[in-house]
Amino acid sequence: MGLASDILNSDLRATSRLLSFIEDGDPRAAAELKELYRHTGKSYLIGITGSPGSGKSTLADHLIAHYRSKGLRLGVLAVDPSSHFSGGAVLGDRIRMQRHATDSNVFIRSMANRNWPGGLNRATADAVRVLEAYGCDPVIVETVGVGQSEVEVAHLAHTTILVCTPATGDKIQALKAGVIEVADIVVMNKADLPDAEHASKSIEMIVGMKPAAAWRVPVVRTVARDGKGIDELAAAIEAHRRAMESTGVLTRKKLETATRQLRDIICRKLYETACARIPEDSELEQYAEQLMRCSTDPYSLAEEIVRRLG
Amino acid sequence: MGLASDILNSDLRATSRLLSFIEDGDPRAAAELKELYRHTGKSYLIGITGSPGSGKSTLADHLIAHYRSKGLRLGVLAVDPSSHFSGGAVLGDRIRMQRHATDSNVFIRSMANRNWPGGLNRATADAVRVLEAYGCDPVIVETVGVGQSEVEVAHLAHTTILVCTPATGDKIQALKAGVIEVADIVVMNKADLPDAEHASKSIEMIVGMKPAAAWRVPVVRTVARDGKGIDELAAAIEAHRRAMESTGVLTRKKLETATRQLRDIICRKLYETACARIPEDSELEQYAEQLMRCSTDPYSLAEEIVRRLG
Repeated sequence: MGLASDILNSDLRATSRLLSFIEDGDPRAAAELKELYRHTGKSYLIGITGSPGSGKSTLADHLIAHYRSKGLRLGVLAVDPSSHFSGGAVLGDRIRMQRHATDSNVFIRSMANRNWPGGLNRATADAVRVLEAYGCDPVIVETVGVGQSEVEVAHLAHTTILVCTPATGDKIQALKAGVIEVADIVVMNKADLPDAEHASKSIEMIVGMKPAAAWRVPVVRTVARDGKGIDELAAAIEAHRRAMESTGVLTRKKLETATRQLRDIICRKLYETACARIPEDSELEQYAEQLMRCSTDPYSLAEEIVRRLG
Repeated sequence: MGLASDILNSDLRATSRLLSFIEDGDPRAAAELKELYRHTGKSYLIGITGSPGSGKSTLADHLIAHYRSKGLRLGVLAVDPSSHFSGGAVLGDRIRMQRHATDSNVFIRSMANRNWPGGLNRATADAVRVLEAYGCDPVIVETVGVGQSEVEVAHLAHTTILVCTPATGDKIQALKAGVIEVADIVVMNKADLPDAEHASKSIEMIVGMKPAAAWRVPVVRTVARDGKGIDELAAAIEAHRRAMESTGVLTRKKLETATRQLRDIICRKLYETACARIPEDSELEQYAEQLMRCSTDPYSLAEEIVRRLG
């Protein structure tokens, strides 16, 4: 099919097609990804995460404009870990970012959840590779704020931006989710609201408690609606990138991501092999009939069946 | 520890404790569940599903009052597939059902998502058994409306209630998610809103297109806020139950659930066995260094490693 070579030649439709394969878990994706892989790994990955309504997409929108003004081609993956049907967040994002819709140098794509644990992370990691091969640099990965998934997507990004607002609960929620631990930059959006300065100071205190490191997490005040603070944010991203590069942290991070991805692919393969060995439905149903009579329980029965599978 | 025997003696704290084990994936749960299993399988399971804001919890609240007025002890599992942190839905539910909080004959519990695919369904299925052993009958399982998860939890229930409102999108969303296919009763809540009758008729048309069966899905009009239509809903549940019992559908459904649960447990066991065989991090990292040099790709590498594990 030659999707890979078309993508390397900046073919938009081929890029779209492969992303669909990835999202659908289509086995045809693997061969193309194998071919693309060695052409990737160079682009800078920016993660944007935060609660719904914090203004992530509007910020992403301004960042897109910022990088476009520098002549860069970039990719945006809007990741919704909650599901296909959970809500308008991703759709809303797409609409908000519509003003870049006709710009072939901005590739925007939504990614919805898969059933496999970490399936979304794997699909996102693969999608990033495809966008890199298409020539996007940077690639922005935006996640709707849903606990663990935020953290996982943040692991993929080189610079992770946590978007907060003065709204009650945001700070506590971020702390609880452990998200603040993975944030390289905190954005206090809606900084024109009355409580913003107080909230910013609280967060500065929280991130100040992180163990001393080469990088001090800044709290950047923005008013995304009006485009205020975007230059400061872009400067903070650049500063973080330089700090990561000079200290070797970036290389280390990439190695960790590669290791994690490798483990994930192996795990998935082993799982598929294992599941192929499960007895047929008709056979399982005979076992289940024992359960209906309560002559055994499913845990003991499963142990017995697995033992028998050897 | 004897949690199982305490639970069978209606010990509230033992029940709580085992539910926590289940939610945390604590291996101590299995032994207790094995012991409880044969005392379960008799309670009636009512599923309530629908979009956020449709009024599920308020309906559940009225149903609780209804069953309590008949002297029944009942359990409520509020299941949130999106995550621990996704929002106030489950917490809100708990608060709304607070008026039953001091009633030891109403056991209300929130269940948040686990990482394993279907992990929540498995945990929910286990939690139902525990509540049964504690003496709850019926057990109400309420899910926040998130596509696939709704459908899966609906599979567990004997009577599944889909809560709709006249609000735009509800109908289409339900159809798309395939939820309407698993609904045994549709509730048109907020039936005092102007569009309610039109919306109800649309849904009656949709459910009317289901292949002819012994059970015709009714659309029950309610105003949950005012407790209107609750008796009708309870009557519809009872009618559905009788229909299921007399046609043998209930037995069939229980067998299918047991089969699915058995498959799930086996699958999980095989997966755990498989994962235990994955190389150590240090070894994986050496492989990942090949990836950093782009001398191979993770898909080919994973295939090679899995082959070697043989």
